[in-house]
Amino acid sequence: MSVLLNIDGQSKAPIFRQIMDQLIQLMDTGGLQPGARLPSTRHLAERLSVNRSTVYRAYQELWSLGYLESRPGSYSTVRQRPKVAAAGRGPTAGRIDWPRRATPVSEALHAAHRREEALLQKASTPGVINFVPLSPDSRLFPLDAFRRCMNHVLRREGPHLLQYGTPLGYGPLRQFIAERMRLHGMSVTAEEIMITTGAQNAIERLLRLLAAPGASLACESPTYARAMDIFQLAGVEIAGVPMTAAGLDLDALEQVIQRQRPILLYTIPNFHNPTGITTDQAHREQLLDICERHRLPLVEDGFEEEMKYFGKTVLPIKSMDHHGVVIYLGTFSKILFPGLRIGWIAADRRCIDRLAAIQRALILSGNLLDQAALHRFCRMGHYDLHINRMHRIYRRRMQTALKALRAAFTDGRIHWTEPTGGYTIWVRLQDVAAAEDEIVQRLLEHGVMVLPGSFHFHGTTDGACFRLSIAHLDEAAITEGIRRLAAGIATL
Amino acid sequence: MSVLLNIDGQSKAPIFRQIMDQLIQLMDTGGLQPGARLPSTRHLAERLSVNRSTVYRAYQELWSLGYLESRPGSYSTVRQRPKVAAAGRGPTAGRIDWPRRATPVSEALHAAHRREEALLQKASTPGVINFVPLSPDSRLFPLDAFRRCMNHVLRREGPHLLQYGTPLGYGPLRQFIAERMRLHGMSVTAEEIMITTGAQNAIERLLRLLAAPGASLACESPTYARAMDIFQLAGVEIAGVPMTAAGLDLDALEQVIQRQRPILLYTIPNFHNPTGITTDQAHREQLLDICERHRLPLVEDGFEEEMKYFGKTVLPIKSMDHHGVVIYLGTFSKILFPGLRIGWIAADRRCIDRLAAIQRALILSGNLLDQAALHRFCRMGHYDLHINRMHRIYRRRMQTALKALRAAFTDGRIHWTEPTGGYTIWVRLQDVAAAEDEIVQRLLEHGVMVLPGSFHFHGTTDGACFRLSIAHLDEAAITEGIRRLAAGIATL
Repeated sequence: MSVLLNIDGQSKAPIFRQIMDQLIQLMDTGGLQPGARLPSTRHLAERLSVNRSTVYRAYQELWSLGYLESRPGSYSTVRQRPKVAAAGRGPTAGRIDWPRRATPVSEALHAAHRREEALLQKASTPGVINFVPLSPDSRLFPLDAFRRCMNHVLRREGPHLLQYGTPLGYGPLRQFIAERMRLHGMSVTAEEIMITTGAQNAIERLLRLLAAPGASLACESPTYARAMDIFQLAGVEIAGVPMTAAGLDLDALEQVIQRQRPILLYTIPNFHNPTGITTDQAHREQLLDICERHRLPLVEDGFEEEMKYFGKTVLPIKSMDHHGVVIYLGTFSKILFPGLRIGWIAADRRCIDRLAAIQRALILSGNLLDQAALHRFCRMGHYDLHINRMHRIYRRRMQTALKALRAAFTDGRIHWTEPTGGYTIWVRLQDVAAAEDEIVQRLLEHGVMVLPGSFHFHGTTDGACFRLSIAHLDEAAITEGIRRLAAGIATL
Repeated sequence: MSVLLNIDGQSKAPIFRQIMDQLIQLMDTGGLQPGARLPSTRHLAERLSVNRSTVYRAYQELWSLGYLESRPGSYSTVRQRPKVAAAGRGPTAGRIDWPRRATPVSEALHAAHRREEALLQKASTPGVINFVPLSPDSRLFPLDAFRRCMNHVLRREGPHLLQYGTPLGYGPLRQFIAERMRLHGMSVTAEEIMITTGAQNAIERLLRLLAAPGASLACESPTYARAMDIFQLAGVEIAGVPMTAAGLDLDALEQVIQRQRPILLYTIPNFHNPTGITTDQAHREQLLDICERHRLPLVEDGFEEEMKYFGKTVLPIKSMDHHGVVIYLGTFSKILFPGLRIGWIAADRRCIDRLAAIQRALILSGNLLDQAALHRFCRMGHYDLHINRMHRIYRRRMQTALKALRAAFTDGRIHWTEPTGGYTIWVRLQDVAAAEDEIVQRLLEHGVMVLPGSFHFHGTTDGACFRLSIAHLDEAAITEGIRRLAAGIATL
């Protein structure tokens, strides 16, 4: 048989692809019926005045897509193709009812995320000042330095970094993290560290290790909203411990331990999310003492360890951990390149060994390339420079925010925390009868979006509260945002 | 007070760091006691003949590490530091007993991985030909092209790619994957695709969505060993369906469905791991028909879809999926850069929406940078070129392996599968009384390592079997390895 094909010398599409596409069109439209013989590669190449290997490649691709009966070599014939299903169409009768198949907990999570997205969607209206995102300002990313580091490691270690690697993560980065933690007073070796997909993933891996069905877990109330998502997905019961201005209520913790026998305590001692509270040395020592007495693993989320701007430094709880009860979680995401998703767990070696087995079962291998590029970035001194710059900038931003709050609210109707670092301020409204949705809506009408306090509570909330994050706003936006906030609150 | 510090102008360490380190040493050794006042930054800068900002930086770092009472500005005093715990030391009495705290399933996983590592460790003896790894040959990685793509996306989209992003993954890569799947006859849109941390992670995410405690799951027996790890971690009961030479036994599957009501079927229709079997069109249609009748989600692991070398092409089951029961898992890891950990799930949109909520809860955001670099790599045509090259090379490697097996074993004492693609060959020994450990040991003595068959079975194995992977061996190594294999087996 003979086929009519046209090769377009001006086209950017490679010739083999032009041949392929035209043959596919002929087969799909019935111009070439199943069983029909294609011209030999030599014959077609001569007729089209192209290289024979070009036709060969087109036939080979067609074969591998199931259009031809056998590989090129002998005569190729058009294959009988089964009817291919069309996307999203087809009968709905026999379809699977995914909402019913999903586990109740994942279905509830999905519903909650949809509500949340609908709410946060409103913040994307142009002109709205958005105090919600807790992601560092990407205008400040030292991109060129990182790109050079990426190039360097790809040139030097490419084959190794792009192959499967250890589930624990890139050795030299673990070494750097250990040294860095030692600077913060924590005695940790590289063997006691596992790199994770952000600190988020670290929480999940810990629950994989420690949480049998029906277990319960203690944490501050309020706490980091996305940590509660993980707790719920893991089927763990959440025992919230109330916060005081000094940190979690230690007496209440004792009661929770005795009553509910939690498998661990999850706590954020620095710039607590959402309240911004940093606990003092005495509180940390008492907290550790309680956990040691009960041999309760204390998970210290040190997510913004490096972002302290004012006042006395307090050492991490992990630095006082003589009995190996503290599991420390760290992350680069709140300072630098959240998109790389690099965090870590530092814990007793026997704990890390077990986490490594879980990590291997769940993802086989870490992403060594990004970890190596980040390691190079740190070793070249860019990380220190960046932290200094971030300190300078965010110290001013936090001062600006606190000053603006003091100027805007003089009547005592609202209270706010005065964080010594990090990005978040927790605001509480006194004597406001309006429901949370109404407050958020009213503020939005005044051009400002805040994160509703209820996101951070498991169960009942604690009055009318919300979180302000200054992470991605510059000083002008912060000042104007707080002006709008005051205007909105004045109407409540 | 006065301190004695020396600045070494020849040192590579920055001056601020030299000041810091010497002050820390003085404080740690008691040369500077808590409460002691440091010289003012101006005073010290003058004495050392350095810039004042250099001293300021040293003091600031010391403050942020908790060595000084307050930030530089006024006089800085040495702080009383709590006793810091030393790594790995300290009393063991109050320590947490991690093996007992770990859930039984994660403890069992840890023990299994340790046994496995001990076994595979033996393969690292120099000179041993290792048929175990199922990772593509890193000597074949097109590194320069990838590095250029990485540079390009970092220059063009850096701030966006390094910020938090969608849990679904980089949009253009999802679009590319959808187009690629359409080439393989599958009608899928980008909205029906979620990028995962390798196909491994895709399996785990599906179980998060579908597996309530006590659920059971059907899969081939034998099957991919690491998939069983996940099944077990998820607490799912594994219902193994025996394999015939044509693929999983369909009658046995019907019985499993009726008896155990599994939540899904996990199947590998191409170059099945470990057996290398590819099912034919008729088997696929019958299998799909069974799953449609029972509305059983069929998880098709298409992990080596592109690596077909011989014979007729068979279309993926997903291409016939008119009722949305097929969930397709894909990965780049078996062809290109496993270290990037990029795989995907393609499924009904309602299923993907729910998986996205889970993904967001567990890792917040995908790693968009690597996904964007890979996307650029694919769009520039490097992926097609690479696949063609891999085909050429692995086709020859597989032919070499099968030819060597035919030449070495003529007495019918061993049987092996003849895969039409992929990397693995499944070998069965007839009439061999030796235990598996003994067989592996004997082969190792002959300088060759294979993956024991029992790794792939849940529960009892099916006679003396092992898996050969030719993924990272060249033709010379394959030929020599099979020669050694024959020599070793002859002694059994």
